[in-house]
Amino acid sequence: MTANTREKITKLMAATRVAVVGASSDPGKLTGRPIAYMLERGFKGEIIPINPSRTEIQGLRAYPSLAAVDRPIDLALIGTAAEQVEPVVVEGIAAGVRSFVVLSSGFSEHNAEGARLQARLTELARQHDVAIVGPNCLGVINAETGLIASFTTAMEENALTPGGFGFATQSGALGAYWLDLVLQGGLGVSRWISTGNECDIDLAAAIGMLADDPMTKVIGAYVEDVKDGPAFRAALRDAARANKPVFIIKAGRSAAGAAAAASHTGAMAGEDRVYQACFDQYGAIRVASVSEMIDAAKLVLHDAVPTAGKIGVLSVSGGAGVLLADAIETAGLSLPAFTERTAAALAKALPGFSKPQNPVDLTANVIAKTELFRETLAVVSAAPELDATILFIGLMHSISDVFTESILAARAKSGRPFIVVWIGARPAIVAQLNAAGIPVYPDIPQAITALAYVCEGRLRRLRAAKLGDAPEGGRATARSVTLSEWQSKARLREMGGVTLPAGVLVGSAEGGATVMAGLTGPFVAKLQSAEMPHKSEHGGVVLGLRDTASVTEAVRKLARIGQERGISCEGVLIEEMVGFDIELIVGFRRDPVFGPLLMVGRGGVEVELDPDFAIALLPLSPADIVAMLKSLRSARLFDGFRGRPPVDLDAIAEALARIGVRFAADPGQDEIEINPLVARGDRVVALDALIKVAAT
Amino acid sequence: MTANTREKITKLMAATRVAVVGASSDPGKLTGRPIAYMLERGFKGEIIPINPSRTEIQGLRAYPSLAAVDRPIDLALIGTAAEQVEPVVVEGIAAGVRSFVVLSSGFSEHNAEGARLQARLTELARQHDVAIVGPNCLGVINAETGLIASFTTAMEENALTPGGFGFATQSGALGAYWLDLVLQGGLGVSRWISTGNECDIDLAAAIGMLADDPMTKVIGAYVEDVKDGPAFRAALRDAARANKPVFIIKAGRSAAGAAAAASHTGAMAGEDRVYQACFDQYGAIRVASVSEMIDAAKLVLHDAVPTAGKIGVLSVSGGAGVLLADAIETAGLSLPAFTERTAAALAKALPGFSKPQNPVDLTANVIAKTELFRETLAVVSAAPELDATILFIGLMHSISDVFTESILAARAKSGRPFIVVWIGARPAIVAQLNAAGIPVYPDIPQAITALAYVCEGRLRRLRAAKLGDAPEGGRATARSVTLSEWQSKARLREMGGVTLPAGVLVGSAEGGATVMAGLTGPFVAKLQSAEMPHKSEHGGVVLGLRDTASVTEAVRKLARIGQERGISCEGVLIEEMVGFDIELIVGFRRDPVFGPLLMVGRGGVEVELDPDFAIALLPLSPADIVAMLKSLRSARLFDGFRGRPPVDLDAIAEALARIGVRFAADPGQDEIEINPLVARGDRVVALDALIKVAAT
Repeated sequence: MTANTREKITKLMAATRVAVVGASSDPGKLTGRPIAYMLERGFKGEIIPINPSRTEIQGLRAYPSLAAVDRPIDLALIGTAAEQVEPVVVEGIAAGVRSFVVLSSGFSEHNAEGARLQARLTELARQHDVAIVGPNCLGVINAETGLIASFTTAMEENALTPGGFGFATQSGALGAYWLDLVLQGGLGVSRWISTGNECDIDLAAAIGMLADDPMTKVIGAYVEDVKDGPAFRAALRDAARANKPVFIIKAGRSAAGAAAAASHTGAMAGEDRVYQACFDQYGAIRVASVSEMIDAAKLVLHDAVPTAGKIGVLSVSGGAGVLLADAIETAGLSLPAFTERTAAALAKALPGFSKPQNPVDLTANVIAKTELFRETLAVVSAAPELDATILFIGLMHSISDVFTESILAARAKSGRPFIVVWIGARPAIVAQLNAAGIPVYPDIPQAITALAYVCEGRLRRLRAAKLGDAPEGGRATARSVTLSEWQSKARLREMGGVTLPAGVLVGSAEGGATVMAGLTGPFVAKLQSAEMPHKSEHGGVVLGLRDTASVTEAVRKLARIGQERGISCEGVLIEEMVGFDIELIVGFRRDPVFGPLLMVGRGGVEVELDPDFAIALLPLSPADIVAMLKSLRSARLFDGFRGRPPVDLDAIAEALARIGVRFAADPGQDEIEINPLVARGDRVVALDALIKVAAT
Repeated sequence: MTANTREKITKLMAATRVAVVGASSDPGKLTGRPIAYMLERGFKGEIIPINPSRTEIQGLRAYPSLAAVDRPIDLALIGTAAEQVEPVVVEGIAAGVRSFVVLSSGFSEHNAEGARLQARLTELARQHDVAIVGPNCLGVINAETGLIASFTTAMEENALTPGGFGFATQSGALGAYWLDLVLQGGLGVSRWISTGNECDIDLAAAIGMLADDPMTKVIGAYVEDVKDGPAFRAALRDAARANKPVFIIKAGRSAAGAAAAASHTGAMAGEDRVYQACFDQYGAIRVASVSEMIDAAKLVLHDAVPTAGKIGVLSVSGGAGVLLADAIETAGLSLPAFTERTAAALAKALPGFSKPQNPVDLTANVIAKTELFRETLAVVSAAPELDATILFIGLMHSISDVFTESILAARAKSGRPFIVVWIGARPAIVAQLNAAGIPVYPDIPQAITALAYVCEGRLRRLRAAKLGDAPEGGRATARSVTLSEWQSKARLREMGGVTLPAGVLVGSAEGGATVMAGLTGPFVAKLQSAEMPHKSEHGGVVLGLRDTASVTEAVRKLARIGQERGISCEGVLIEEMVGFDIELIVGFRRDPVFGPLLMVGRGGVEVELDPDFAIALLPLSPADIVAMLKSLRSARLFDGFRGRPPVDLDAIAEALARIGVRFAADPGQDEIEINPLVARGDRVVALDALIKVAAT
């Protein structure tokens, strides 16, 4: 399915003979705009207006129907009333058309009847293996051919500059804003696709198409709800393999946003933090706005992505140098000290009162003594201890030529990224530097945020490129039941991976004597009932039992609690108490969008107080899980914090990886929670566990 | 001193008869620029060039010396060589000049001789009670009178628009960028001052002047190092009392930034987090960049500061509405549900498919049906459950008149703030809305960051306005010694405030029997030595002692440890062990800039692992300390988390307030650390304590 929709949309984008059904002579109307846009910008193909009542539309010969066209049509663009769309698609299919873009609204976004009409389109697309973009979308653009199968107002004023930036969007409006800001910002576009209601071509297919597309160097996406998790993961993975950064705006991060999104899209999207985990794992970078996306993409399109985050700074202002140092370090990048060799070379170039250190303070002397700039830039850009150079300039328009020339010369020599922050730069100067391939930012935060994004993205892509295919299906079942601890542990024992405390299940009549045979105290006694999953909150746990009498007493007490509450109990679990140095909470769950995943975090009181956890989608190798554990804020605990011995992360990771394989393969299990999973050295023990299984 | 420098700089800014010493005929030179700038912009005063070799400069009559001028001079602007500055100031003082701005460099920023020259200027300012701004500064600007006693290149191209935005800066370059961005952005300036080396007028005086200044409505500052903590605190407090928001860029937040700042300013600034605490407490808002500062100030200058953070959103795009909801909630503002009444009124105005909920999705239908905008805007802007309205618009230039008219009408009626986010708005439209007093932002993050800043600032100012005067002096002493726990606790006991565990100090010869009289076990034994402050790391603590024998054994063991290490010991402290529900770390310290302060945070392992603490400057009332405790991430622990009983925050706060008063009043104490301070119910006990006192 995935590969198929990707191929279909790739073919659709390449269309060179485009029919516009319901074509209008009015270039301001929905079905007149695409024709006007393409005529104005010289579409490298043929536009065929379809309109039964006209013989000519906007200077082109019009045909009464798709069937009446005497040559093959690559793409039919449909903007008729909703109820007319299906007949047109049927007619098109009969006439051999393989690709459709449906701009019309009035489908699932409107009412139940619309949803029915849309389901018919889905059916047609599958049955006849044709591509349908939309309905209720803004269409598609291919800047290479000048195909503008869209009525977006963003094409009213802008030239369609071809370039390396591709965009896929689930919101037409956001797509229009992106187009306008990218084109106004002087960046070039490759392909653009608004997926609308996604009756056939979805966002995953669109991103996959951009990953495959040779013209696209960097991918942007606006995401509201992913419909096919595995296809989405595959698309991101393939973008990573093609070394294409993917920047995503995902709506619904906050509770208010998620509520608004649910109301807006009509679909209950998966949990936002699972989306975030998917982006992290599959190499995508989440950005907060279209502006941030463009700032980050600018670095990619200007070949200014450093291989790592060690930054050298040259500043005409000492204060700005300090602010840059702050921003760089806060963003997780670094400002390394210069080597002696670099410092010595700089000392020769700099005036006496300026120290040869990173950030380099050029001072306003650079205006009078421009060679200062050229010389120091040459030294810093060649310093082997650095990955990129940032230049800070403020005002100083009079010597912009010197800046530009020096930067171009240094870049040609070092082949390393240069990024310019120029406060107060006039548009002409920015355009001049951009034209020379140098990215320019109007202030420090924009530049450093962009730089941090592309550096992080580069690391993520290296990891994501190695990922295999995502497991199909594996969603949570509609209804589930929670097993008791005893039953849950029996299943865990069978899966292998973790150790379980030695213990026995005893009935209320039995006493401590049973237990003492073969077990070593102290003991814990826990009431076993599927109706009391949070037993410690209800007095269902007794700790620190040391002898026969106290165990017997505890068993009786717990049995009484069960009776008083009127719940069905299996008995009381008596277990050896286990000493440990680390306490984790572990959850295997099935996300409705992305399928099976692992959540692992710091256990104990922090679970509710100040959660510290990592989420990743299965399958996960032990190495992946070690990386998750190391990403916790409290990761230092594993190293043997405050006199405690270190714990064996590999042992924890191997145990969890093994359970993960079993969980992913068994769709009858909805959830496994191990809370706490404890460790001391290489011993990893599930102290408590609850498993939810599909209701039979 | 404070009030004096504030009065002096206030008087200086009002200067109307300005002498320029060493005046140049060349309008491009340092001492030619101020004259050219003022002539061009019509300074409402008299410019008197001083130059012994010219009788006319830039069309003005020149005088050979300050003494030769036959009428009073308000301000002498000096741009001569460094060694000539002192004689000029002396001559000016003799001639009755009371205010000087020294642009010249070559002072403390240059070398020891320069520092000596600068010290002479400080001496002159104090001795003769005159104001000196600089040296090594960019000067001052008063947009009301057109006084431009500055050579900043930012005045080359910009008109000096008068307005309500004042700025004080410790970096000339940042001052220039600010001027350019503010004036290019169409905002108006009140006063502007670059303080340079601060031989007399410092940043605190400049901010105080802006707090007092009737023209200034909002204050910006760039801070590298505060020299007079109490004066700085008073200036911020006075700004809060005048209800003027203060936005601060403070360099040196990160380790790299702090290092770069130390190198740049030559001064070791105080700890960044103490600066942050000062800003928080005294009503200032720290921003990351000049752009952020301008975005925030725009709301103030357009009278768009809401009384609280409940925001209504109208959006022409559903997707953008979701992104706004995310940004609003993430920023700590809220997006309340509409009341039934508001929802009913909206339902009448909205088309059937759009739900009457916050954010309101107007959809692109607004283009065809503009009354939709006017009607919904009227409803939302009048809704009593909201404090402000944000409108999101993208492109749609064709109906900008409708937007503007509707917004102005609704604002006139509701008197409530309106903020417009308009993606892709062309400059003419932004200018049109700005001219009508409506703030416009080019994307969501800029608007919401600004809004969060002004809302937070408003709350902080209400608190800060009530603060008293800061204590003078009270810096840490140069050398200090750490007392043993026993001695520290003796001092604490004397101060009152906290309870101390019952205990006795015993020598190594004594045994458990001494202890048992009057004390209740279990006990803890702790070796007492000023040479072992972190005793538990060195085996100097034995816990859980229950009887005479074990106490005797512990005392011997600890005495042996002391002997083996060859440290001087006072004995062993035997204390009753204390049960508790909450563990805090408490530190009273003296910051080199701001003086005595309190640090209080979550105790235990988190102190090193994932610190969670609050800092505030003394004096602090019990209510202030309760607020600090409630600001901790782990504050929920105080409410009785996970079955534990709640603790009495007031009891903790009163104990700490009392110690704080004593600490602030006793400059002989450098530091008090109580780690842990524990609490159960209303019982607050210092389990361990260390006090550092000035070395005698």
